[in-house]
Amino acid sequence: MKRYYKLDEWKIIEEEFVPDRNKMAESIFSIGNGQMGQRANFEESYSGESMQGSYVAGIYYPDKTRVGWWKNGYPEYFAKVLNAANWIGINITIENEELDLAKCEILSFKRVLNMKEGYLERIFTARLNNGNEIKVAAKRFISLVKQEVAAIKYSVTPLNFSGKIIFCPYIDADIENEDSNYDEKFWKEVDKKTYNREAYIIARTRKTKFHVATGMYFNITQEHVSVDFKTKKIEKKKYVANSSTVECQQGQETVLYKYVANLSSENHEKGKLLKNTKKTTRDASKIGFEILLHEHIKAWAEKWKESDIVIEGDLAAQQGIRFNIFQMNQTYTGEDPRLNIGPKGFTGEKYGGSTYWDTEAYCVPFYLSTADSNVARNLLKYRHNHLQKAIKNAEKLGFTNNAALYPMVTMNGEECHNEWEITFEEIHRNGAIAYAIYNYINYTGDNDYLHEYGLEVLLGISRFWAQRVHYSEEKKQYVMLGVTGPNEYENNVNNNWYTNYIARWTMKYTIEAIGFVKDKNKEAFNKIVNKWDFNERKETSDWKDKILKMYLPENKEKGIFLQQDGYLDKEQILVADIDNSMKPLNQKWSWDRILRSPFIKQADVLQGLYFFEDDFTKDTVEKNFDYYEKRTVHESSLSPCIHSIIASDLGKRKMAYDFYLQTARLDLDDYNHEADEGCHITSMAGTWMAIVEGFGGMRVKNNQLHFSPYLPGKWTSFAFKIRFRGHLLAINISKKTIEIKNSFNKAITLVVNNNEVEVAANQTIKTS
Amino acid sequence: MKRYYKLDEWKIIEEEFVPDRNKMAESIFSIGNGQMGQRANFEESYSGESMQGSYVAGIYYPDKTRVGWWKNGYPEYFAKVLNAANWIGINITIENEELDLAKCEILSFKRVLNMKEGYLERIFTARLNNGNEIKVAAKRFISLVKQEVAAIKYSVTPLNFSGKIIFCPYIDADIENEDSNYDEKFWKEVDKKTYNREAYIIARTRKTKFHVATGMYFNITQEHVSVDFKTKKIEKKKYVANSSTVECQQGQETVLYKYVANLSSENHEKGKLLKNTKKTTRDASKIGFEILLHEHIKAWAEKWKESDIVIEGDLAAQQGIRFNIFQMNQTYTGEDPRLNIGPKGFTGEKYGGSTYWDTEAYCVPFYLSTADSNVARNLLKYRHNHLQKAIKNAEKLGFTNNAALYPMVTMNGEECHNEWEITFEEIHRNGAIAYAIYNYINYTGDNDYLHEYGLEVLLGISRFWAQRVHYSEEKKQYVMLGVTGPNEYENNVNNNWYTNYIARWTMKYTIEAIGFVKDKNKEAFNKIVNKWDFNERKETSDWKDKILKMYLPENKEKGIFLQQDGYLDKEQILVADIDNSMKPLNQKWSWDRILRSPFIKQADVLQGLYFFEDDFTKDTVEKNFDYYEKRTVHESSLSPCIHSIIASDLGKRKMAYDFYLQTARLDLDDYNHEADEGCHITSMAGTWMAIVEGFGGMRVKNNQLHFSPYLPGKWTSFAFKIRFRGHLLAINISKKTIEIKNSFNKAITLVVNNNEVEVAANQTIKTS
Repeated sequence: MKRYYKLDEWKIIEEEFVPDRNKMAESIFSIGNGQMGQRANFEESYSGESMQGSYVAGIYYPDKTRVGWWKNGYPEYFAKVLNAANWIGINITIENEELDLAKCEILSFKRVLNMKEGYLERIFTARLNNGNEIKVAAKRFISLVKQEVAAIKYSVTPLNFSGKIIFCPYIDADIENEDSNYDEKFWKEVDKKTYNREAYIIARTRKTKFHVATGMYFNITQEHVSVDFKTKKIEKKKYVANSSTVECQQGQETVLYKYVANLSSENHEKGKLLKNTKKTTRDASKIGFEILLHEHIKAWAEKWKESDIVIEGDLAAQQGIRFNIFQMNQTYTGEDPRLNIGPKGFTGEKYGGSTYWDTEAYCVPFYLSTADSNVARNLLKYRHNHLQKAIKNAEKLGFTNNAALYPMVTMNGEECHNEWEITFEEIHRNGAIAYAIYNYINYTGDNDYLHEYGLEVLLGISRFWAQRVHYSEEKKQYVMLGVTGPNEYENNVNNNWYTNYIARWTMKYTIEAIGFVKDKNKEAFNKIVNKWDFNERKETSDWKDKILKMYLPENKEKGIFLQQDGYLDKEQILVADIDNSMKPLNQKWSWDRILRSPFIKQADVLQGLYFFEDDFTKDTVEKNFDYYEKRTVHESSLSPCIHSIIASDLGKRKMAYDFYLQTARLDLDDYNHEADEGCHITSMAGTWMAIVEGFGGMRVKNNQLHFSPYLPGKWTSFAFKIRFRGHLLAINISKKTIEIKNSFNKAITLVVNNNEVEVAANQTIKTS
Repeated sequence: MKRYYKLDEWKIIEEEFVPDRNKMAESIFSIGNGQMGQRANFEESYSGESMQGSYVAGIYYPDKTRVGWWKNGYPEYFAKVLNAANWIGINITIENEELDLAKCEILSFKRVLNMKEGYLERIFTARLNNGNEIKVAAKRFISLVKQEVAAIKYSVTPLNFSGKIIFCPYIDADIENEDSNYDEKFWKEVDKKTYNREAYIIARTRKTKFHVATGMYFNITQEHVSVDFKTKKIEKKKYVANSSTVECQQGQETVLYKYVANLSSENHEKGKLLKNTKKTTRDASKIGFEILLHEHIKAWAEKWKESDIVIEGDLAAQQGIRFNIFQMNQTYTGEDPRLNIGPKGFTGEKYGGSTYWDTEAYCVPFYLSTADSNVARNLLKYRHNHLQKAIKNAEKLGFTNNAALYPMVTMNGEECHNEWEITFEEIHRNGAIAYAIYNYINYTGDNDYLHEYGLEVLLGISRFWAQRVHYSEEKKQYVMLGVTGPNEYENNVNNNWYTNYIARWTMKYTIEAIGFVKDKNKEAFNKIVNKWDFNERKETSDWKDKILKMYLPENKEKGIFLQQDGYLDKEQILVADIDNSMKPLNQKWSWDRILRSPFIKQADVLQGLYFFEDDFTKDTVEKNFDYYEKRTVHESSLSPCIHSIIASDLGKRKMAYDFYLQTARLDLDDYNHEADEGCHITSMAGTWMAIVEGFGGMRVKNNQLHFSPYLPGKWTSFAFKIRFRGHLLAINISKKTIEIKNSFNKAITLVVNNNEVEVAANQTIKTS
């Protein structure tokens, strides 16, 4: 394995500039605050390989889909997050030569992502072709406190000359998505204004007509004093800039502070965007870079207080998990239920920035434990807001009675994916959305969520499942044909065990939820019954019949559940039998060969055993794990974490640790050679789960937190923070003891290694 | 059902111009000669709805594929037949007004496709906006005799004025495919020349670099005498024309004869194309329109002599079958083994003009019986020529040992389709290619074909099947997973009965063929063994094991073969249960709903029972027919003919006739509302089969022709011609008797209704 960045517990450090790895570094060193995100592109011109990326949350474009062969039911478009205005740009010209690291000699280079404090820093010295040597230090952050504000401190020091340097900060809204299906540009200019030391552009998206205003206010200092400089306004199509010529002395630092605002029509009246943006940049400039940064660092400290994991004895693991937590917190902050989490977050365009079932299956547990319960609640409400669209989606596929099928991939609740075997058939996503409701309530105890939002969603999903199965005269049971399970290396299979199981579970849980709501809040229940024309007696009795007679394929002799009908007909070869030259299968084998092989992309039966572990004996889990593990190639970043957690649970500690290592530094060490496209944000939540649920053994059962921790690998200790129903708990596992600190004014009773322990208010206890 | 054209036994007649139906008529009235084809576009300008279509056999372009989600193994391109230079164009201008039927008043209009004589005629009178009334008669044909020549006779008669008329015949090579994936033009100009009364363009295709020269030579007559006129040469990009102004008198016909040649670099050296094209047009002009037409009509008479079917008592059926035979003969003439038959022939762009399994399954029987055996032989050699490419194709999918997988869709032997469930999985096509070899030899007795070409192909295909199955520990038999059968309303199924059966049959037949060649021509056999590194003992014993233990799903209780594993798990609904508003399913249902339904697009198990009928008892065939017929929606044009033949065989005569009617006039009556895209050429062969094999009960067994005919529907008699091993037989079935005429200097013994009858040389017998 190759290490590209220096190990450090709080920082990602790149100590030399490798142009071939620049796009990868641009992903890794991305910054964001949940409302906007920015890849680590350079401020100054760069003509080398780069993928410019600047994203504004919630702003998307419905790009016309491109398919070879249209299937009835396909959506007309694929929504994609937009690459938005470049706000970082500062062109530097020294004696007619533009600074461009692809064209001059780099004498030294260092790029640092400070995860503790949430900023990106870059320091380099370079010799231009005209012989002039300069030192540049660039620091930037996107404020966690003022969510529409970003700031850049860009300093240039002439090392071997004195002379005029032209600083030209700009905003460029003439941006194209790399993944534009028809090579179109998605932005049109609405308005622009350029003043002395400030400039603004309002651009609107085609079709969706979002308006985004991007503005900058800047000043330039030498020796901490504002320089008196004149600017030349530059305006081009979708582009504004201010060219500023400054006299610079050898050895003296000249600093440009650029205060940026990105405001969107999602949060402001279109008519007020310009005014509000001006106010935002001007206010930021008055506060100043250092104070803005200071309050930003404080906000990060708060985040870390609740979500940090400390690992001792393994610096690479420490850096890896912090990087993952950092990226999760940069991607989603949970204030806005219109937003969600794309697989690449704000670090790239792939997957269109859209929402997948990753959110419910992987991200919800992370935010449940590391943030206020409103954060996870908002992720859930996102789906509730889209219920009507999920019903429309199901209608399009022939379902009735307000059955709901949530989209496989979405930006605004509408389906925007177009592979029939995924779009129409990977319907287990519906189950994960139901499961997340259970998971949220189980963790938070927020039962009110059911009558407020949850039950309506459960009703729609259960109605879908009830229609999606039918009675097989042959099997005398209910079957579900033509699905794709979590293991996408099988398509259009019959009776995927996981999907059948979660469908049955959803109907069961919905019946439970109905009973609960009816009991606790009859009025709310009646409202729901009327709104959804719910025939409780008839529908629940239909569900009960289907629950009772649901077909769940298994092989009793082997003691395993069958991933799907006919799985045992497959050639009985194991991952261990595959020659390394054949890996990864998805690059080396044709699709049909992958499909008919027994090989599994990611946890499928095992995903079900993970979700519903209490339904099964350890022996059953182990038999299935032993069987399927040997056939799983983990070619999805979402796979090893589930295997790791189950392995931990089964006491297969070496395995658990090995799986953990596969994801913890997936992007940092670029295992899959694709970090250039962006980071695997949603799988980062899985890494967190592998530590807390796997090594920490955390579960919530009957309103109680359980732990059964152990120290993996060479770790000498590890500690994590958990929020649980008002409590902030710090759990510290070392070789001999387990220390639990309860930062709350109420006691809590936990179960540690099957023993109840009470931790008094604001106390720490040690146990083992 | 709606009739768009007047019934006539030898003609298709359109008696009024309906702009909305023009594109459909352009398909129906297409003409071609196997080397080129032309939709029935107008010679003069037409600004209304039209799909221009001119095609030159073998000239294609590898258009970059467009897919939403790339799968490993996909071909980089989709080859498509090219829309080539417009050679029919003759613009007419009368007192500054261009003749355009979309812009003037049509007083009368008649379009006739004379199938007996192979030409298209159009006669109309029109009143221009300037008040001038004219009569136009346009006649054109593509010569069956001089295959690079076409000719047009275009006459204009002023009805209420005398004056100057500008005739501007042109060649326009600036043509775009409607189905261009990226809206690109595929032609580039190489050269052009314009002379008095003649003009030439050489265009070359991008990437494939085919050169096509298109030229014209024309003259203009009045009262059968050449008019003295001056031409103005017009040259534009990829366009040449000759504007000719002629004084015309009221009531007097002015005729323009346009002699056209289309020569391609497939048949001429590139450097000689211009010269050869000039010679071709000039020679044609010297021969003159009427003589060219006369020899063309004679050639058509020869075709009809061998392939005509005469139906009495049902004019619609008579017209329908002649239209089908006419189109088949226009599409493929069998001289050139580089050519094949696209599903739309030369009548449209859909399916890219490429070759599908339609050729082997449907077209080969037609040409076997209605043409010299070399015609079918060339269709077979087409695949032999592509054997190396089929081996490469299989290698790409992971197969070894020179296993061959023929492409699903091809122009030059390379796969050019990109839907994984079809490209990689609809592998039964390989079986049809093997079956065609058997069928050809069985029909012709040309056993030499085996050692010359056939055995090599069989070897490659059997090697493929042997690797494509594997032994299921569960079933203790060989299984074939992840295929798509002929019924494309199922994708990625396991153990499609038809595919497993034809795979097993191929291996059996290959072993037989090996025995035969070894026995008859040891030297040829040894050559093949060496060339293909064939380990006879080892490989055939492996095949024998697989033949013995091939899994063929069936349900003994119902007495049926199962279309695939799990077919009986499907909801047991029948076509009769589907509300009409739901049909056709492929337009009304989403793809997943179609897939999980029991509904069948086209004969699948029944296709196997048709191919291998002698392997099964009538009872078995009937049980399967009764079961699957009720579940078949026939949403492929290739389906009803197979059902019709089996129904005939089972004595279900009403059904057989109803199925026949579904295809016989498919395009003429535009059942599927898609004739505007082109005609269903390959399914036309199926219609022929439904008559000859179905109603005529023709089979070849043990080198003998068998018939067991009956009169369907209201037919009072029908007669068909059959070529069989030198004999030309005319079979005439009437109410009481069966008349058989043997036009050959040798006697033949046939089996009619299970009785042997001998027909002496050049004699006719009557039997019953």
